[in-house]
Amino acid sequence: MSNRERILELSLTLMNEEGAAAGTTTRIVGELGISPGNLYYHFGNREEIVRVLFDELDKELRAVLVEDVGPPISPARFAAFYLRSFDLAWRYRFFFGGLLGLLRRDDVLAARYRALQDWGIGELERIAGQLVKDGNMTRPGGRGGLRSVALNTWLIWMNWIRFLQISGKRAIEHEDMADGASQLFDILAPYLDPAFERSARRALARDLPR
Amino acid sequence: MSNRERILELSLTLMNEEGAAAGTTTRIVGELGISPGNLYYHFGNREEIVRVLFDELDKELRAVLVEDVGPPISPARFAAFYLRSFDLAWRYRFFFGGLLGLLRRDDVLAARYRALQDWGIGELERIAGQLVKDGNMTRPGGRGGLRSVALNTWLIWMNWIRFLQISGKRAIEHEDMADGASQLFDILAPYLDPAFERSARRALARDLPR
Repeated sequence: MSNRERILELSLTLMNEEGAAAGTTTRIVGELGISPGNLYYHFGNREEIVRVLFDELDKELRAVLVEDVGPPISPARFAAFYLRSFDLAWRYRFFFGGLLGLLRRDDVLAARYRALQDWGIGELERIAGQLVKDGNMTRPGGRGGLRSVALNTWLIWMNWIRFLQISGKRAIEHEDMADGASQLFDILAPYLDPAFERSARRALARDLPR
Repeated sequence: MSNRERILELSLTLMNEEGAAAGTTTRIVGELGISPGNLYYHFGNREEIVRVLFDELDKELRAVLVEDVGPPISPARFAAFYLRSFDLAWRYRFFFGGLLGLLRRDDVLAARYRALQDWGIGELERIAGQLVKDGNMTRPGGRGGLRSVALNTWLIWMNWIRFLQISGKRAIEHEDMADGASQLFDILAPYLDPAFERSARRALARDLPR
């Protein structure tokens, strides 16, 4: 593993375990036993490390939202999509709890995050629209329609880990993502065709990480 | 207005406008033109100011969740409940963006917040259950049932303001709470009796702050 990769991996581990403010360059350099010059050869500053980690999250989320849910969307694929999106949130969990602080400190990161969010909500709307086209979902009524269920799905997804951190009864574990996937599923569930819903729930229950 | 009240009011204003980290005791004392001793006569430290503000939010939220939705729940009362809960979130908006940081700095506040959250989610479950009893809502299926819709309602409510802050296209305004109420409504909407839902949406649209 190159020093660049070791720096990224250690930063991600430290921030996931101790929050987005952890993983200072001094500590990274100390724990890896490399010189400060070596770190600054790869990254101009700490913000740049966070940006590169965010770009990985960005790339993986775009893959989840496109690859897993090509039309027509099967119940098994749909369930896998929820689980994969929470697995991703888990692997980059530092990002969600400290998001507001991270974006306030770095305008470049803020712009990239907002672009991803806009795209992501649009993509969730497209997925819900595809389920309607496939005949497996009724179109939501109300002021917001498909857009509203897409936005609620995004809000639950991006806030589940922070909710667990705030609830704080114990350390968060990968298994906790199962409840998040279930919460997320319940946003669209009432609009799903009953047979499709049962089938997707079975797939979700079978593949939950516990 | 007493100095105690002036300190609380200014702290709330500063934190709402500049984030939960604003409103240091030095600044409060300076802007009010009182002595540090006067402030410390009323509050042992800054955490105590935040705790007193939280206790007011706590008291008001308990009132919203109990008073407005006594059985049987009318569509107009139901709509008013959503609007009032977002009006409350708006008045104490500093709390939501900086919540994780505030709770990590103060164990007493964290315990109080968690007690309120547990109670609030339980109460939302009770309200949804009452709608079912009233014959105006079908019981949600799935793994979580009423508990799951209650939890999703809580998650949307507590994260709406932070979502706007993160989206950050412009300063947040009171009018933005209308979209939040609409998002919240869409969690329960698919389970509501169509006539009840139409009537509640009309009431919501009529009383939205725009």
